[in-house]
Amino acid sequence: MAKVADKYLKVDPWKIIEEGFHPENGRVSESIFSLGNEYMGVRGYFDEGYSGDQLIGSYFNGVWEEKPIIHVGKYKGLSYRWAFMVNSVNWLLTKISLDDEKLDLNTSEISDFTRILDLKTGVFTRSFTWNAKSGKKLKIAFERFISMVDYTVGCQKITFEPLNFTGSVDIESGVDFSTVHEQQDNKSYWGLEKSGQTGNFTAALGKTEKSGHKVMSAFRIVSAQAIGIELISGHKQLATKFSLKLNQNEKSEFTKIVVNHAVKNAETDIETVWDQGSAIAHEYETANYDELLKKHTEYWKEVWEKLDITIEGDDENQQGIRFCIFQLHQTYHGQDAANNIGAKGLTGEQYSGHTFWDSETYCLPFYLFNNPAAAKNLIEYRYHTLPQALAWAKEQDCKGASFPMSTIDGTESCPVWWHGNLEIHINAAIAYAIWHYQKICGDLSLVYGKGIELLLQISKMHASRGNWSPTGGFGFYGVMGPDEFHTFVNNNAYTNVLAKFTFEYTQDVIQKMQLADPERIKSLLTDLKISDNDLAEWKKMADKMIIPMDKTTGIYEQHEAYFLLPHLDIHSIPVTDFPLYDNWTLPRIYRYDMIKQPDVLLFLFFFSQQYSLETKKINYEYYEPRCIHESSLSPSVHSILAAELGKHEEAFEFFNYATRLDLDNYNRNTREGLHTTSIAAAWMNIVYGYGGMRSDGDVLVFAPSIPKIWKSFSFRIIYQGVLLSISVKKETVNFKTDGKSIKLKIYGTDYLIDGNGTDISIPEFYKAK
Amino acid sequence: MAKVADKYLKVDPWKIIEEGFHPENGRVSESIFSLGNEYMGVRGYFDEGYSGDQLIGSYFNGVWEEKPIIHVGKYKGLSYRWAFMVNSVNWLLTKISLDDEKLDLNTSEISDFTRILDLKTGVFTRSFTWNAKSGKKLKIAFERFISMVDYTVGCQKITFEPLNFTGSVDIESGVDFSTVHEQQDNKSYWGLEKSGQTGNFTAALGKTEKSGHKVMSAFRIVSAQAIGIELISGHKQLATKFSLKLNQNEKSEFTKIVVNHAVKNAETDIETVWDQGSAIAHEYETANYDELLKKHTEYWKEVWEKLDITIEGDDENQQGIRFCIFQLHQTYHGQDAANNIGAKGLTGEQYSGHTFWDSETYCLPFYLFNNPAAAKNLIEYRYHTLPQALAWAKEQDCKGASFPMSTIDGTESCPVWWHGNLEIHINAAIAYAIWHYQKICGDLSLVYGKGIELLLQISKMHASRGNWSPTGGFGFYGVMGPDEFHTFVNNNAYTNVLAKFTFEYTQDVIQKMQLADPERIKSLLTDLKISDNDLAEWKKMADKMIIPMDKTTGIYEQHEAYFLLPHLDIHSIPVTDFPLYDNWTLPRIYRYDMIKQPDVLLFLFFFSQQYSLETKKINYEYYEPRCIHESSLSPSVHSILAAELGKHEEAFEFFNYATRLDLDNYNRNTREGLHTTSIAAAWMNIVYGYGGMRSDGDVLVFAPSIPKIWKSFSFRIIYQGVLLSISVKKETVNFKTDGKSIKLKIYGTDYLIDGNGTDISIPEFYKAK
Repeated sequence: MAKVADKYLKVDPWKIIEEGFHPENGRVSESIFSLGNEYMGVRGYFDEGYSGDQLIGSYFNGVWEEKPIIHVGKYKGLSYRWAFMVNSVNWLLTKISLDDEKLDLNTSEISDFTRILDLKTGVFTRSFTWNAKSGKKLKIAFERFISMVDYTVGCQKITFEPLNFTGSVDIESGVDFSTVHEQQDNKSYWGLEKSGQTGNFTAALGKTEKSGHKVMSAFRIVSAQAIGIELISGHKQLATKFSLKLNQNEKSEFTKIVVNHAVKNAETDIETVWDQGSAIAHEYETANYDELLKKHTEYWKEVWEKLDITIEGDDENQQGIRFCIFQLHQTYHGQDAANNIGAKGLTGEQYSGHTFWDSETYCLPFYLFNNPAAAKNLIEYRYHTLPQALAWAKEQDCKGASFPMSTIDGTESCPVWWHGNLEIHINAAIAYAIWHYQKICGDLSLVYGKGIELLLQISKMHASRGNWSPTGGFGFYGVMGPDEFHTFVNNNAYTNVLAKFTFEYTQDVIQKMQLADPERIKSLLTDLKISDNDLAEWKKMADKMIIPMDKTTGIYEQHEAYFLLPHLDIHSIPVTDFPLYDNWTLPRIYRYDMIKQPDVLLFLFFFSQQYSLETKKINYEYYEPRCIHESSLSPSVHSILAAELGKHEEAFEFFNYATRLDLDNYNRNTREGLHTTSIAAAWMNIVYGYGGMRSDGDVLVFAPSIPKIWKSFSFRIIYQGVLLSISVKKETVNFKTDGKSIKLKIYGTDYLIDGNGTDISIPEFYKAK
Repeated sequence: MAKVADKYLKVDPWKIIEEGFHPENGRVSESIFSLGNEYMGVRGYFDEGYSGDQLIGSYFNGVWEEKPIIHVGKYKGLSYRWAFMVNSVNWLLTKISLDDEKLDLNTSEISDFTRILDLKTGVFTRSFTWNAKSGKKLKIAFERFISMVDYTVGCQKITFEPLNFTGSVDIESGVDFSTVHEQQDNKSYWGLEKSGQTGNFTAALGKTEKSGHKVMSAFRIVSAQAIGIELISGHKQLATKFSLKLNQNEKSEFTKIVVNHAVKNAETDIETVWDQGSAIAHEYETANYDELLKKHTEYWKEVWEKLDITIEGDDENQQGIRFCIFQLHQTYHGQDAANNIGAKGLTGEQYSGHTFWDSETYCLPFYLFNNPAAAKNLIEYRYHTLPQALAWAKEQDCKGASFPMSTIDGTESCPVWWHGNLEIHINAAIAYAIWHYQKICGDLSLVYGKGIELLLQISKMHASRGNWSPTGGFGFYGVMGPDEFHTFVNNNAYTNVLAKFTFEYTQDVIQKMQLADPERIKSLLTDLKISDNDLAEWKKMADKMIIPMDKTTGIYEQHEAYFLLPHLDIHSIPVTDFPLYDNWTLPRIYRYDMIKQPDVLLFLFFFSQQYSLETKKINYEYYEPRCIHESSLSPSVHSILAAELGKHEEAFEFFNYATRLDLDNYNRNTREGLHTTSIAAAWMNIVYGYGGMRSDGDVLVFAPSIPKIWKSFSFRIIYQGVLLSISVKKETVNFKTDGKSIKLKIYGTDYLIDGNGTDISIPEFYKAK
């Protein structure tokens, strides 16, 4: 894996710092300095506008527009509609002029540029000195945050300090619905439906063309100066215009309190939205910037007490993992079960804000072990979209429910049928998530409630989508597994293992419910027309599931006849050929034994305790050299397995891409937005990789190891309601709870851990030499 | 195979007759009554216009327009441009009025409607009595032909006979470029560039929007009456207006001589085209309808003397096979090596006028055995498009030349990559065609000339597109074979068998040329950078080619792991589910052992003499029940093999779909145009099927059999320059040449056949009981 770091940001344990303006990395910085609070997010673009290359990205979770998907052939069951998280109102709109000279970092002369994202407080600041053509020198500092407490609120503060003059600065500040959605025809999808005053807020209400979603954006300018404000309106814009008096070497500032109210449906009419938005705004009529900021920073303080991971001896990864935790938490923390996690979070347009199976397989553990309520919401999101999944299954000539591979609204929005229609493994990932939640959070309400409905509908789908082989086995034909470099394959091992698991887990839950809640399970089975015969058939399908494996070597075969594919030495591929999708034809990418991301290795990790170390070793050593990690999710899984296998150097090499994937722009595409779901994999990489945690058994298992250059590291998790702190030093590891006792298996030995903590020596095998 | 005949045409040995107007079959009739002469073609639409459902289809071979192909993802190597045979000038434009009542068969009252296509003469007539609202009864007869001798000339004659009045009829007659191309946005792609008089012709010149192709259509009205002609011009139209005096019970007529000049490039300017067209028109300044018709019918007389197939005792198939021969010959007979045979000939828009591998595999034998010059031209067409094939190979990350699966201009215009980019077997079909030509026509000039270049370039492509399997074999991965119900398969048996053949044949030709023309082959190999090492490598690839087969059963495996696919009982599919593409999702169609058309059976037929009867039987009995014949090419191959295997009833059942596929509209889509390439398969079905001919050995082999209901049948072929007549009766078969002696193998015995003829008894095995 030859990926090159692109380092222009300073290393700091708690901050992301850009010193000096790097216009060539403008879009990368915009992504990295993104802010969000699950409800909404903005990229780190310049408040005052910028005539250079930029993406003014402002997104609301679940606010989408749609357009038709045009296929080259009209086939049944393709997705003909594309719903995408649509770029929305720029509520930071600001224009700054000095003597009619407009501030624009692309053309203005500036010095002392600094941009800082404070991970501890969730505040983004930027400052520089503007050397105007008039000779005036004006120091300007921007500060913004999106409140983690007051979801609808975003705040901006701009401070001016004239270094060599006394005078005034002219400001325009407002909201703008003319932001274009670059990836879909580079146009604005918003119409301005209503604007004007509401209480002491100035507001504009926009509506999307087709989906009819609405956003009302109301703002209020606050300044210590008595400023005369003039209302101006432009194309899809509404702003106030005022001047701020400036005294030499004194700071003058104004703040902007913005309330954004998003309505994610076509039904609610404009007046109702306006009234709702006004009511919310009125709650903030007297709120001031500092009070709002205080609540916000206190929230982050509490979060870090639970979520922080410390790494001693490796400043880069210390910064990296905190950046990951910060970004993942601000993207999603379970505020609303109608939300999910887009592949790029709320930081860009790439992947259309779509949720993939990443949510269940890569993101969920982070929440399971830190925020069970959020984990539950994440799973319940799928339940909310069950009607769409039922309709999609029918469209696919299947029974039950078939969940979308790529979606923002529960419908399949993957335009590429050989991914979207074939990657049925997303369904089993949901079953796995329910099972994982039950295991870690010890809460049966989900599985006995909405969970069992999901499990039954998914099993129905599996039974109808699968086929019996002439050799007597059951399996899935014409699928794509997690490794997206092989399409239309038969009996993908991962897909089959997960489907087998789903059948078995479903039956297990049915049996438990027949004792725990017999009425409900009986009526459910009746309603869903699932007979005893069906259940017997499912059992047979699970028992006879084809899991391709070479019995002589113990290597699982990624799919039927995969072992017969031509071998490609991936190291022979010139670096300039990457990314392969841009430079190789599909038949060339798809026809070798080269894989894009772990497939067999993934189920060996998901069901870790069912497979011996030897099995993992053989399979890791076979598949690792065939994997080019074109998915950002890939290295972490390899790192976790390498750590388990005592391959310390390899583990650390793969880990290096995990926490700093975006900070160092390893994949050369951070400009498009953060790899939000890969960020989750970085967390897993530490907890499952170096923590050696395995969560697929009846008892939580740990086998910590520590990279050579680290002095120590620590992390915390919540397991079945108990807060557990794990601190790993060079020779020993300490486990400690918040008081309650809990049984753990550490390095193969059972321990009862309590609030007093237990020190355990690290065995030699786990020490990186 | 449950297909239902839709019979509304009369059975006649030499004519296609529609008695009574069948508007519900309007488009089917338009297809069936099509005329063409390779240069151009028109559907059998109504000269006078029709307000009901119709497709005014007028096409010129190789005149295409283009539009971009929009894919859902931007991948390298996809086809981004769609070139399609564009619907062109309606040169039959006529309007007929009686006392201001316009003739329109959708609204006018008519009686005694008859429409006849005379296969013997190539003349299409239509007549009826118009019962006008005024009470006037006017008998009208239309006659048209497209000259097989004067390629640019089309002629129309309209005869009027008033049954109960004396008066006049008002006529408009002209040419119209406003015909829409239905399948591509239902719009006209023509602009009218110039119009006016040229000599005694009236002419209009149209140009396509993007491709810049031009057609000049010049017409001349001839009548025995002195008619006063007025020129009128409408949107993209130019016509003359005149009245014809009518006397009760007397016939009055006028004829229209049309000269169409098509220029298939963007470069030639309008004035040049006008001058060229004018020069051609001037050649016909004095030509009259009857003279032109005489030349045309004499041409057909000669053709039938060589091409006719007689069947005694089966009027339907007698009519069917003559219809097939007529349509195939008028679509293509080698007039110009720049022409090819579209899947629908010149009779409709479906398949965009594209040429597929059908030309080499299904159509070629018809020409090989009747018209070697045409066969040569058909192959040379590929040579003319070699530059495009070289460019396409490069685009596909391959070396050499990769020919398009679907094309009108030599570039790949298949929008669906999992067909167009994967059906590489088209290339070997070209090699097979060269080999077949050499064998049957005994002419080495093609193979030692353009042929070897094609062979070398195709072999280069094969060597670069194929891969070595880890088991040591060579093969092709990520392909689609002739059976289009399985995509992205590995080691498709047909593809590999044909590629192996291509490597071997290429080497064979190289060796022969090293004796016959050492200079040329040496310089060719040097120019194409083919080293001795490459040749050694090709030999190894051929030797080690993977041909999947179950050694215990002797059944060839259609592709690697095909035998592991779930079985589908094709008879369990409800009739209403057909065509499957409309009612099943792609993963459902593609994931079973169900096949669309012969794949393994096809190479067993192509290289018939390399395989034992037992091998054919085993494979036929395995694959036949799995084949749904969704391709119209499929039944004939099955019929041919069934005849060889002595399965007489099955053979005849499959044959029944062959000659009358369009006449009886078995596939319910004759309305879209004729199945022109399947028509060729019907010819093969008689000659290879009932004639039992096999042309893949050193000697031509025959083993005639005769269906139960036939009294006799006869056909003629040209083999290595000798005209051979075969006449099959119930008990004996007679072989006779035009004088020269020729060695044949008949029922396994060697014979020397000469002009005296030889009677041979039919063995019992070949007699249908």
